[in-house]
Amino acid sequence: MSFAKLSKQLETICAINITPFYMNTKEIDYKGLEENVNFLINNGAKVIVPCGNTGEFYTLTIEEAKTVTKRVVEIVNGRAIVMAGVGYSMETAIELGTFAQQAGADCIMIHQPIHPYVTEQGYISYFKKIIEALEIPSIIYFKDPNLSDDVLKELAPLDKLVGVKYSINDLQRFAKVVREVPKETNITWICGTAEKWAPFFYHAGAKGFTSGLVNVYPQKSFELLKALQQEDQETIWSVWDEVLPFENLRAKYANGNNVVVVKEAMEQVGLRAGVTREPVDPLDKEDQAEVSKILASWGLLNEKAGLI
Amino acid sequence: MSFAKLSKQLETICAINITPFYMNTKEIDYKGLEENVNFLINNGAKVIVPCGNTGEFYTLTIEEAKTVTKRVVEIVNGRAIVMAGVGYSMETAIELGTFAQQAGADCIMIHQPIHPYVTEQGYISYFKKIIEALEIPSIIYFKDPNLSDDVLKELAPLDKLVGVKYSINDLQRFAKVVREVPKETNITWICGTAEKWAPFFYHAGAKGFTSGLVNVYPQKSFELLKALQQEDQETIWSVWDEVLPFENLRAKYANGNNVVVVKEAMEQVGLRAGVTREPVDPLDKEDQAEVSKILASWGLLNEKAGLI
Repeated sequence: MSFAKLSKQLETICAINITPFYMNTKEIDYKGLEENVNFLINNGAKVIVPCGNTGEFYTLTIEEAKTVTKRVVEIVNGRAIVMAGVGYSMETAIELGTFAQQAGADCIMIHQPIHPYVTEQGYISYFKKIIEALEIPSIIYFKDPNLSDDVLKELAPLDKLVGVKYSINDLQRFAKVVREVPKETNITWICGTAEKWAPFFYHAGAKGFTSGLVNVYPQKSFELLKALQQEDQETIWSVWDEVLPFENLRAKYANGNNVVVVKEAMEQVGLRAGVTREPVDPLDKEDQAEVSKILASWGLLNEKAGLI
Repeated sequence: MSFAKLSKQLETICAINITPFYMNTKEIDYKGLEENVNFLINNGAKVIVPCGNTGEFYTLTIEEAKTVTKRVVEIVNGRAIVMAGVGYSMETAIELGTFAQQAGADCIMIHQPIHPYVTEQGYISYFKKIIEALEIPSIIYFKDPNLSDDVLKELAPLDKLVGVKYSINDLQRFAKVVREVPKETNITWICGTAEKWAPFFYHAGAKGFTSGLVNVYPQKSFELLKALQQEDQETIWSVWDEVLPFENLRAKYANGNNVVVVKEAMEQVGLRAGVTREPVDPLDKEDQAEVSKILASWGLLNEKAGLI
């Protein structure tokens, strides 16, 4: 597939699949992983992203991250694009990217460097060297507000850079950089802050968005995408209204709830999510009840669950 | 050594040694590492911390981090306490800690978890499990302002927790938690934000501080420690005045300059630091000149360097 064609195919939802862990051992539940990924694809997901933050990438060992990527490629088996998350030190990111490429992933998403000290030219060099070390193309996860968008403008001309997951909720900045990066660079701009921000970012040039909600309620995420594509304002804002309580609950405790709310919701609707690993513990009763309330409002809880 | 005794020995400077990289290959310069660690010890360092942030821990592969720790233990050879930095996923942190223990490190410093989602109980569980997995004691690197100090109060009673590197520059919070954690828990409070903040934190109960400056000018760091211990106000503030321009230059670019300024200064005074790895690039000419100016003001540049 040409880089330009792949870039175009990112104008959709990037489904950041969770990594299910068994309740007691917190080991990876690979059977659950298979069920989850199939659920996503059967419900319309065109891009699957293993080893994203919603996949608790940073709670996995390097070896586990590789295995998760490999398994997801096998499960997807050509039915969607696999964008494998890679990160850590530059050398480790290249190692993970090379592994993903050999395993058959279509592209990689390079996480924000975890080193607490970053300079603009150092950042550019970090991404450039990873991008150039691989044959498959890359997507940058851009989330450090201390960096200027100049780094994206410098990286955009690279052939193998096909997308930017923009995760700084500064729409002025975002709209400006989208206008300043030439169209010919074939960058697909992806809203990195999900359904809550997607309507605003879409309007400013992000033709895709990432989603964790999609693990629970893919129909709703795709309803939003379709409404955005059709400029159906009424549906956009009614869906937005519907998903807002869920996304706000995920944002609680400075985003500490981000993944555990998704997992709790999946468990409540009968999907196989299990628990989160440290440094995140299970939801308290109050937040569990809030999840139930939201799921009930969506009509996703049946009588069997005893909640409607 | 008893945990209480070790804790007491942390009432000093934790020298976060840099990891020297060769200019061209960016490989670790182990000969340089040896020279640097010897320089620190010969100039009074009692605690050496390999794999800290100033050691560019997050630019090292897991294997490199192990090797650096092992080499530092060998170089130190009982002449100082070795506090090895560990981090990443909980499993990886335990792996690194176990390695450090077997290599002969005296204790570990557990970095802030890198997972972007953290809950208080999840955070406690993360640290507790790492601390309890090892025989040697631990120091917590505490830097997430979104967490309350309750997590420290919950962890403090653990026998094997001997110190907290407190790196949130909120003196009200810090003074309060120091007063609230019982003395019998044998926690040594360490100011994690170096010479610039040490006078304020010392006053509020931090009997030690971490330092990157110590790699360049250990005499000055220890002059400050001594003045703090002797309550010599005049010297405290005159040293503080002297080191401030250096620490402020390190803070430039949202701390992007943190390590590269130390390495540049070391190179200028003839120590073996080499370059930083990505995502940090070399200093620009202007900042290089600023480093020279500061070193000259300290009397550390001789005529040979052509700068005085």
